Amino acid sequence: MSKKLTSRAADYSKWYNELVVKADLAENSAVRGCMVIKPYGYAIWEKMQAELDKMFKETGHQNAYFPLFVPKSLFEAEEKNAEGFAKECAIVTHYRLQNDPDKPGKLRVDPEAKLEEELIVRPTSEAIIWNTYRGWIQSYRDLPILVNQWANVVRWEMRTRLFLRTAEFLWQEGHTAHETKQEALDEAALMNNVYATFVEKFMAIPVVQGLKTESERFAGAVETFCIEALMQDGKALQAGTSHFLGQNFAKAFDVKYVNKEGKQDHVWATSWGVSTRLMGALIMTHSDDNGLVLPPSLAPNQVVIVPIYKSEEQLKAITNVVNGIMSDLRKKGITVKYDNRTTHRPGAKFAQHELQGVPVRLAIGARDLENGTVELARRDTLTKETVELNKLTKTVESLMTEIQESLFNKALNFRNTHTTEVDTFEDFKTVLETKTGFISAHWDGTSETEDKIKELTKATIRCIPLDAKEETGVCVYSGKPSKRRVLFAKAY
Amino acid sequence: MSKKLTSRAADYSKWYNELVVKADLAENSAVRGCMVIKPYGYAIWEKMQAELDKMFKETGHQNAYFPLFVPKSLFEAEEKNAEGFAKECAIVTHYRLQNDPDKPGKLRVDPEAKLEEELIVRPTSEAIIWNTYRGWIQSYRDLPILVNQWANVVRWEMRTRLFLRTAEFLWQEGHTAHETKQEALDEAALMNNVYATFVEKFMAIPVVQGLKTESERFAGAVETFCIEALMQDGKALQAGTSHFLGQNFAKAFDVKYVNKEGKQDHVWATSWGVSTRLMGALIMTHSDDNGLVLPPSLAPNQVVIVPIYKSEEQLKAITNVVNGIMSDLRKKGITVKYDNRTTHRPGAKFAQHELQGVPVRLAIGARDLENGTVELARRDTLTKETVELNKLTKTVESLMTEIQESLFNKALNFRNTHTTEVDTFEDFKTVLETKTGFISAHWDGTSETEDKIKELTKATIRCIPLDAKEETGVCVYSGKPSKRRVLFAKAY
Repeated sequence: MSKKLTSRAADYSKWYNELVVKADLAENSAVRGCMVIKPYGYAIWEKMQAELDKMFKETGHQNAYFPLFVPKSLFEAEEKNAEGFAKECAIVTHYRLQNDPDKPGKLRVDPEAKLEEELIVRPTSEAIIWNTYRGWIQSYRDLPILVNQWANVVRWEMRTRLFLRTAEFLWQEGHTAHETKQEALDEAALMNNVYATFVEKFMAIPVVQGLKTESERFAGAVETFCIEALMQDGKALQAGTSHFLGQNFAKAFDVKYVNKEGKQDHVWATSWGVSTRLMGALIMTHSDDNGLVLPPSLAPNQVVIVPIYKSEEQLKAITNVVNGIMSDLRKKGITVKYDNRTTHRPGAKFAQHELQGVPVRLAIGARDLENGTVELARRDTLTKETVELNKLTKTVESLMTEIQESLFNKALNFRNTHTTEVDTFEDFKTVLETKTGFISAHWDGTSETEDKIKELTKATIRCIPLDAKEETGVCVYSGKPSKRRVLFAKAY
Repeated sequence: MSKKLTSRAADYSKWYNELVVKADLAENSAVRGCMVIKPYGYAIWEKMQAELDKMFKETGHQNAYFPLFVPKSLFEAEEKNAEGFAKECAIVTHYRLQNDPDKPGKLRVDPEAKLEEELIVRPTSEAIIWNTYRGWIQSYRDLPILVNQWANVVRWEMRTRLFLRTAEFLWQEGHTAHETKQEALDEAALMNNVYATFVEKFMAIPVVQGLKTESERFAGAVETFCIEALMQDGKALQAGTSHFLGQNFAKAFDVKYVNKEGKQDHVWATSWGVSTRLMGALIMTHSDDNGLVLPPSLAPNQVVIVPIYKSEEQLKAITNVVNGIMSDLRKKGITVKYDNRTTHRPGAKFAQHELQGVPVRLAIGARDLENGTVELARRDTLTKETVELNKLTKTVESLMTEIQESLFNKALNFRNTHTTEVDTFEDFKTVLETKTGFISAHWDGTSETEDKIKELTKATIRCIPLDAKEETGVCVYSGKPSKRRVLFAKAY
């Protein structure tokens, strides 16, 4: 397999698929639509998990675990939610295999081992969790419940792509219960903000926080908050959602509490989630034609060191220096790997680490030893410089911050130059076809117009930005009055 | 629901079930045999995961993630493995629900959405992983592969018990590939030793390391290493297993590599796992009639502080002192929680923390403020003492070690006094019925004898201890010659 990637300009979609596989992030499996997350890809996901988990705990949440399966009768209890997921769920109907009498050595489903009630493999866990919460909640003293779960979920998607849309994916789903509507609304907004902070600070991806329109809302939600990011091909990607569920699930599962005044009421709910889809966003935001580009905050190895030697003696001398460098960097909390494999040449190592997006690569050869220097290559800018050994730790340390900020600013600049205010439908279509990106336009607030625009242009309303200012205008399509601009884009 | 537990003496099994639920560790769900792991129980599991994960990484392993589903044709490829799990696996046959034409508002399985090939929900992942490894391994340069996965698995058990045996459980499964038989054997032994170290050091449970007999081996393994622990009712519990798989899976999935001499050969494999079953072992080893007893290493809160006050003013003064205590304890790395809930009285708080096994409870009242003291209650011994404030941090710090060691020693002492060497089958039966525990006896090495003993006594061979010394003897049942003693017990 050639190491060279298809360029983004030639075929963005092919570039992405090749990059994911060649950088050892993930690959397709023998199960239709399900991926294998390879160790290097999983190491990045683990870093994301660790940061998110910390943020969830800092905001008062605890982890728990609920069953993988949802009995059909529970699944269908909240009608809109059921309707939203019914068409794409994997269903367990039997619980035993037996020897196939017609095919020696083969197994078949034992027809006698049919479940009394089918089990749905969770596409999301509101149903099973709210059925459980009924037993946990009696009085206001039991509230709020602030629970998160790290889990796998299954949605039988017909067209799948590694990380972006897979039949099985990994995610976290928060499910909270509250006394009042306001408290639940605040929670939904808070967690959307946690997502925004995480994605901007750790993933170096700028996001727009907003609300979904009715037709883009989560099935069963009253209001869906979201964060939307813009990829390098000008398409938007929904990076996380946080739902205010009102009393829909509490009513469907009869979850009531007695308030301080002794009156009974249904509780108020939220749910919120981000998934391995974030890996797709990370890859598509920063990477280039040479491969993955990782922000230092999420790189499994922030620095890699490659020795360049012609003799065992040289290698020994280099290794001596490298040990000192590694010890100094580690004291600063920087993760560093010494790539002293004897099975690969330096050129092959350089290529691999570039493809895998290691933020900083150091190379040390005989000349460097003499001069007391190191060659430092920066992945995001593809620049090289020679650094004096005694300045190396400081240089690398400040580079960690600089690269992180630089990646964010580059992505922000891209988004800014790819967000266009338009006031006519002609301009709307022209921008979509030429410049792409976010289009900020007035909309009359109806699903009819939204559908029509989607039908004509494939663009959808990504969100009504939380910071959208009141502004009198007319809908870009219908000409009807509008009070604020919304963000349109073609989306993943 | 009464807070008082059934005593162990009255009904050990009932005691266990009640404790798990009342201490808020886990509960049964609406899905047959599947449990909900509640936040407090999950917090303990998280601590176990964190320690194990660290140990896996220190021994060179990386995490990855493989699909939840195994296509039937892959599942049946390794015959013994398939046979071992065929009778207890959940099977996905369809991928869509539709509105039920006969029952308005209800859903039914869409008969047209039948999968071409059934998918087995993984009971263990050898099949899907070895099918993947075929693509990862070409030459010795690709070896060893040292991969672990944290995941949920499903085994459709007919009789389930919270943590001990559930249809779905959480676990980790390591799957490694090696150049040589010896390397794979060493890996299997190494990981069994990692498990033993973890269980003894962190869970404070002494274990016997040993090998399983042929009939107790993992389906598809050539050799199964295990760690066996003894519960307070004298029954053994298999706490972890590590399998040397030989070339069985490599052959079933055609995974070959080219060695340094250019010759092709199948690779050698291991797999190893521990699960949420460890939670059951933890509970059953240390807990008492008052509830859970946790070793400090795994307690979500190592210390809890309860204020005892009659006025807001008193509470304020107490809180002032508590803030200082918490800050001092946290500096020593001790996790501490201030239980200043206004919704519960001190007595209720004491009862809850006792039930939930918090290792050390501190109480501070007005009298303590005057005297500069704190009341310290130790959960494992149920003893109380008054400690001077200026000696508190030191006292608590050394208690953390002392309690951890004391729990281990208590369990070790129990095991020692419940391990009996017997030389006649009469004694064997008598010990089983009276003293219970491990029985160390000679066995002729045949499955026939093993089966017969099981049939007559319900005791199985838990393991052939790794440290069993060569000793001439005769089988306790058949009278045939034997070279070493093995460990029998009734088991979970």
